[in-house]
Amino acid sequence: MAGRLSAITRIAPELMTAATLVVETKGQGFSELTREVARFVAESGAGDGALFLYLRHTSASLVIQENADPDVQTDLVTALERLAPVDADWAHKVEGPDDMPAHVKAMLTGVSLHIPVSAGALGLGAWQGIYLIEHRSAPHRRELILQFIGSRL
Amino acid sequence: MAGRLSAITRIAPELMTAATLVVETKGQGFSELTREVARFVAESGAGDGALFLYLRHTSASLVIQENADPDVQTDLVTALERLAPVDADWAHKVEGPDDMPAHVKAMLTGVSLHIPVSAGALGLGAWQGIYLIEHRSAPHRRELILQFIGSRL
Amino acid sequence: MAGRLSAITRIAPELMTAATLVVETKGQGFSELTREVARFVAESGAGDGALFLYLRHTSASLVIQENADPDVQTDLVTALERLAPVDADWAHKVEGPDDMPAHVKAMLTGVSLHIPVSAGALGLGAWQGIYLIEHRSAPHRRELILQFIGSRL
Repeated sequence: MAGRLSAITRIAPELMTAATLVVETKGQGFSELTREVARFVAESGAGDGALFLYLRHTSASLVIQENADPDVQTDLVTALERLAPVDADWAHKVEGPDDMPAHVKAMLTGVSLHIPVSAGALGLGAWQGIYLIEHRSAPHRRELILQFIGSRL
Repeated sequence: MAGRLSAITRIAPELMTAATLVVETKGQGFSELTREVARFVAESGAGDGALFLYLRHTSASLVIQENADPDVQTDLVTALERLAPVDADWAHKVEGPDDMPAHVKAMLTGVSLHIPVSAGALGLGAWQGIYLIEHRSAPHRRELILQFIGSRL
Repeated sequence: MAGRLSAITRIAPELMTAATLVVETKGQGFSELTREVARFVAESGAGDGALFLYLRHTSASLVIQENADPDVQTDLVTALERLAPVDADWAHKVEGPDDMPAHVKAMLTGVSLHIPVSAGALGLGAWQGIYLIEHRSAPHRRELILQFIGSRL
């Protein structure tokens, strides 16, 4: 047996909440959203359940990543640039040289995530933070939809 | 503060629906599913909540991507071919030279997604569409499971 | 029309369960979790609904992949090593040369997944298994949160 399973907790899913989170990015790079997402969970009156995040764009993405050493974020941006270089002779160029690489990066990292919630707290690991990655060079206004489903606190 | 949070809406999650969507692909490339998914949401009688999509295969995947310029889809397929080339000397060859690259591409892009639903409408951004990417060269029959959870319209 | 939609089934979401699954990895590579996850679903008394898996780490990840030929897993690990090589001159080196590549691999493959559940059974495709990928060289203790939402069996 590869894993050890804990006791199972049970609740009735009686509450579902939703809100929009608008983030102004400063161009390519990471924006941490952990505090805003925790605030949504608190203001929802959430107890136990699950939180869903959805990003309404195709040239930015959502990831859970390390929140300790800022060098990690720099390296992650570099890694994505290597996987989708600006000078790769893309067919889609009408929105600028950084647009098609941005779509590739968004495809590889995704726009849909969930995080468990327990007693009103996000179930993030000790080194995990919630980040939006802006893949375009210029600043953009990005819109997320946050949802909670579960019990009341 | 990195973001602005809107007012929070609340509903009771009273309805959960499910259906299977079968897609016949024409070989490597994108198939748009947005219309079929919207039809599932409408026929579910869905109000506010979340839609879940799951693909029951390991050599195709599900992504949210740009729905405007078809060149974007061509470039995304090319980008995946560069990341998982057919001639990379794979150990797993028994199902043909395009099979192992297909598994790598499916791992990088995923088979599980959610999209918010508001007043019976998918919460997609203006330029977002829902796509199945077929990673095998030959046409395949692909099966998805769609689920909605939330309120009635 | 790209796809054929089946009849829609309806339930009331009356049950939400949660448990922690602890997995001891043996260093870089795949650990299959399908049996443990199926056990969680069974012990939850789950009927129809959705299962959510969340991994509380940033240098390991969760994927749905082929469960037949073990060569596939070897090739997937090789593919990730090519995309995030140890010798790529990373800025973040304080936790060892395998740490930053592990964060890149976790970003590309993700830590959040859902799988549909029908009549108490996981809706996996015939060739799909649930895997944790350890991206660090050394063995690690990894913690997942499993959740089910739906009807009772």
